[in-house]
Amino acid sequence: MLATKHQNIIDQAVRATHERTFYAQYPEHPKAYGDDAHAKGIQSYQQLLGKPFKQLLQTNETGWSGEEVSPYTREVLGITYPTFAADDLIRKAAIAGKGWKQLPVAERAGALTETLERIKDYFFDIANATMHTTGQSFMMSFQASGPHANDRALEAIATGYHELLRYPPQVSWEKPMGKASVKLVKTFRAIPKGIGVVVGCSTFPVWNTLPGVYADLITGNPVIVKPHPRAVLPIAIVVGVIQQTLKELGFDPNICQLAADSSNNLITKQLCENPAVKLIDYTGGSSFGAYIESLPGKSVFTEKAGVNSVILDSVKEFEPVIQNLAFSVSLYSGQMCTAPQNFFVPEQGIETANGHLSFNEVVQQFKEAVAGLTQHPKMGAGTLGAIQNDETLERAREARQLGGKVILEGTPVENEEFANARVFGPTIIEVSSVDNKIFEKELFGPVVLIIKTKDTDHSLQLAKQMALNFGAITCGAYTTDQEVKEKILEEMNSVFTPVSFNLTGPIWVNQHAAFSDFHVTGGNPAGNASFTNQEFIIKRFVWVGNRELAE
Amino acid sequence: MLATKHQNIIDQAVRATHERTFYAQYPEHPKAYGDDAHAKGIQSYQQLLGKPFKQLLQTNETGWSGEEVSPYTREVLGITYPTFAADDLIRKAAIAGKGWKQLPVAERAGALTETLERIKDYFFDIANATMHTTGQSFMMSFQASGPHANDRALEAIATGYHELLRYPPQVSWEKPMGKASVKLVKTFRAIPKGIGVVVGCSTFPVWNTLPGVYADLITGNPVIVKPHPRAVLPIAIVVGVIQQTLKELGFDPNICQLAADSSNNLITKQLCENPAVKLIDYTGGSSFGAYIESLPGKSVFTEKAGVNSVILDSVKEFEPVIQNLAFSVSLYSGQMCTAPQNFFVPEQGIETANGHLSFNEVVQQFKEAVAGLTQHPKMGAGTLGAIQNDETLERAREARQLGGKVILEGTPVENEEFANARVFGPTIIEVSSVDNKIFEKELFGPVVLIIKTKDTDHSLQLAKQMALNFGAITCGAYTTDQEVKEKILEEMNSVFTPVSFNLTGPIWVNQHAAFSDFHVTGGNPAGNASFTNQEFIIKRFVWVGNRELAE
Repeated sequence: MLATKHQNIIDQAVRATHERTFYAQYPEHPKAYGDDAHAKGIQSYQQLLGKPFKQLLQTNETGWSGEEVSPYTREVLGITYPTFAADDLIRKAAIAGKGWKQLPVAERAGALTETLERIKDYFFDIANATMHTTGQSFMMSFQASGPHANDRALEAIATGYHELLRYPPQVSWEKPMGKASVKLVKTFRAIPKGIGVVVGCSTFPVWNTLPGVYADLITGNPVIVKPHPRAVLPIAIVVGVIQQTLKELGFDPNICQLAADSSNNLITKQLCENPAVKLIDYTGGSSFGAYIESLPGKSVFTEKAGVNSVILDSVKEFEPVIQNLAFSVSLYSGQMCTAPQNFFVPEQGIETANGHLSFNEVVQQFKEAVAGLTQHPKMGAGTLGAIQNDETLERAREARQLGGKVILEGTPVENEEFANARVFGPTIIEVSSVDNKIFEKELFGPVVLIIKTKDTDHSLQLAKQMALNFGAITCGAYTTDQEVKEKILEEMNSVFTPVSFNLTGPIWVNQHAAFSDFHVTGGNPAGNASFTNQEFIIKRFVWVGNRELAE
Repeated sequence: MLATKHQNIIDQAVRATHERTFYAQYPEHPKAYGDDAHAKGIQSYQQLLGKPFKQLLQTNETGWSGEEVSPYTREVLGITYPTFAADDLIRKAAIAGKGWKQLPVAERAGALTETLERIKDYFFDIANATMHTTGQSFMMSFQASGPHANDRALEAIATGYHELLRYPPQVSWEKPMGKASVKLVKTFRAIPKGIGVVVGCSTFPVWNTLPGVYADLITGNPVIVKPHPRAVLPIAIVVGVIQQTLKELGFDPNICQLAADSSNNLITKQLCENPAVKLIDYTGGSSFGAYIESLPGKSVFTEKAGVNSVILDSVKEFEPVIQNLAFSVSLYSGQMCTAPQNFFVPEQGIETANGHLSFNEVVQQFKEAVAGLTQHPKMGAGTLGAIQNDETLERAREARQLGGKVILEGTPVENEEFANARVFGPTIIEVSSVDNKIFEKELFGPVVLIIKTKDTDHSLQLAKQMALNFGAITCGAYTTDQEVKEKILEEMNSVFTPVSFNLTGPIWVNQHAAFSDFHVTGGNPAGNASFTNQEFIIKRFVWVGNRELAE
């Protein structure tokens, strides 16, 4: 019994979702997985290149399609994926879902945990696939698409497991009526809502996809995974492993299907608009996200664009702060949804334990820290990774024409291992607080804005307005003043934005840890989903209570 | 400390929401509240007639308005209520909400439980007010607007209390990083979404209003109660008690405001469309419900129209079954949202332990049971109560012209106590399964349709289609066959409709008990709310997690 085999993992994970202290089922260090794993992963990845991808168990394809290009080599991967008619995918999902929803939740949880344990053996294949589709560095590719994604998936399993066992399956209800009583037997059932579709993005094809996939599956819904055509391989490997595991366990592999498509023949709308599809998870741009959210009769979970702010008020030591921020903005070239973009600095500068720093000194040190990091021969290319696509590169290149004062001009950065890699350092622009047309939108990629404000109250007011009107997934703040801290907390939380204070050293505002940090709060325009609060789970099924007169 | 004073009540209620066995904090027997309570309640009610209602603590009214007419005496109550500008209500709610949301949940739970304990002293006033606005019998008025409503309110408090304490307010998070580690202090805050509006109906002005009111309040949101202009008094008394209790406890009474209006100057849309209003609870017709659900940027909880079915397959003894059903359709003249309307009976009749009953025998016995009950001099008028308004009376009067075969023609029924009472017995019409135009809509009031089907599978198919397309809050079924039972359960649950099997004796499909039965599942067109599952609570606030580098 898988339910028994993995009970310990599931119980620990449930406890972790409640306690919210540090917890990881899958270690984030590559070396935890054996010395030869890395080399074997490269080999496995290379064997996939230039061929049809055959690890899925889906049949009846209408064709084969593939258009991935490595941001590192700029070469086409040449892998093709089977494509399917939307109706065919829906039909198979509906059939597969019938058996899946009948299973006790403990069995679903056991089977799903088994899939994660099997995916673990492919972490390095997935890492290379992620690197050469998203442009993430190897380390980020490994961590984000491997252990971190698996932990987020386990978090969804655990939250679902807990919620689905919340009510007793059967109770005896006896109402006293004077001398007699009425007795009913009541049963409580969690009825899955229907077919789920999870729409992935090109930058985090696994990390942003697995929570929705496992949330659908644990709650008894079959799921169709619709990857971004530019980043299919990492999630294709994952879906392949899930299908193979499910089949081996005696389940219909179509419980989880891959719906690869191509840029000139996208099937996202066909899938999402199908009346049998009741659940949609989406990561991507805001306008398509608004379309998804507008579809009637669906439960929708979105992560859209947001503008993340950092408020600089006062610090103990400035050097560790600015090093931390330089890393935050450079990491994967600002292509994380949690990357900070808008830095609010008071015109009179900031206080430090070692004396006052003028506004210009702050700006100058920011520039030096970013330039020092990104042009560092050993650190630069690895931190920046590569730019996923030409549109983002173009945006980065043209950033200097946005307006404001160019503090640091972004330039191509050399990657020693991959001479053709699409690498471009951050552009830093100083703007005034009235330049809201510039800073009130997401400039996805390596673009940093330093906004000169009257004072910290003004910084806070602007950061709050940004979050309220344009969304924010996170906010960083630096202050040594307890009162200021409380005020920032109060105001930013009131627009449903979490705040990270005074981060220095090896922890960055960009990071959201499974089992502890809620990712996206669901409260502001950045999206209505949150990994993994209860809402992310319980909107996927309906509690129905039945009654019968007791004999 | 109120938190301490009522901790026992709250703890028991939380346990009850989990265990779902019989639980009631407020006994449903009038005699539990003292021998003279009934007489005093009538007196208190009569003293309110013909005067401005002065028990609210709200100020700055723009006028006074009142249009209630007793369905029993057909006389205007002559009570007027202060009216307010929508903007003024919103402004005051926003101010009051600021302090309220800062309170620890235990304090809010304690204060809210105290309001329920005070409301208890007004159960008989509220009962008379309910009787003379809704037309419910005294007993139903007492139970539904008194103990049952209070229990539903306590259930919302308990569910909120549990959910808001789900995560530790502060944790120390330490991530091992080889030899060193990173330490963060994390805090988790449940941020209320904003101002709530609860839109009431004319038939259950308290029972359907309190869950939303207390769900908003326990989660830290101020609430504006918008009653139906024809049924203000019962909820006005409740809001008055809440305000007086809150004031006495040192809180701003505007945390809970009454927004009475008049039929020719409704302010519901003004309130609901205000951007500061983030939460809307609504009970009423489907078309206005659809408007409410379409408002962008709101979390909405609706209970709209539905068509409740009863499937007759086979029974042990028919007499107790048909007596139970006759009571179900007669109780408050079918004006309960849980009242069954469509009775599906196979053309070949049904099996009983005492032999076969033909279709016509079933129909005939149904007619006799309903006629016998409603024309019974002691039982009839008390069971039927009165029809709330002339529109419903008109619908009942014209029911015989719907088409199909009139089995029992509804006629006025005399109420000995109130000669002018608007009482009208149920009309029973036999239709064919192809008469879907007749039976696929809610015929609110005393109208019963018996639908002749090919067999039980056909009955089930039709009942399922009704629930799927037009919504259902509940479904009754009678069968002695285990396989048929499982099939009905499976199919009706798949369209998110609860089923009650083989009810006889003093328990009816219409009843939904607090702490055990979910009222409305949220899964079909009858509404997206459910008293009180977690969704009803957790959509009213947002979890936000903050982090700070530990010193």
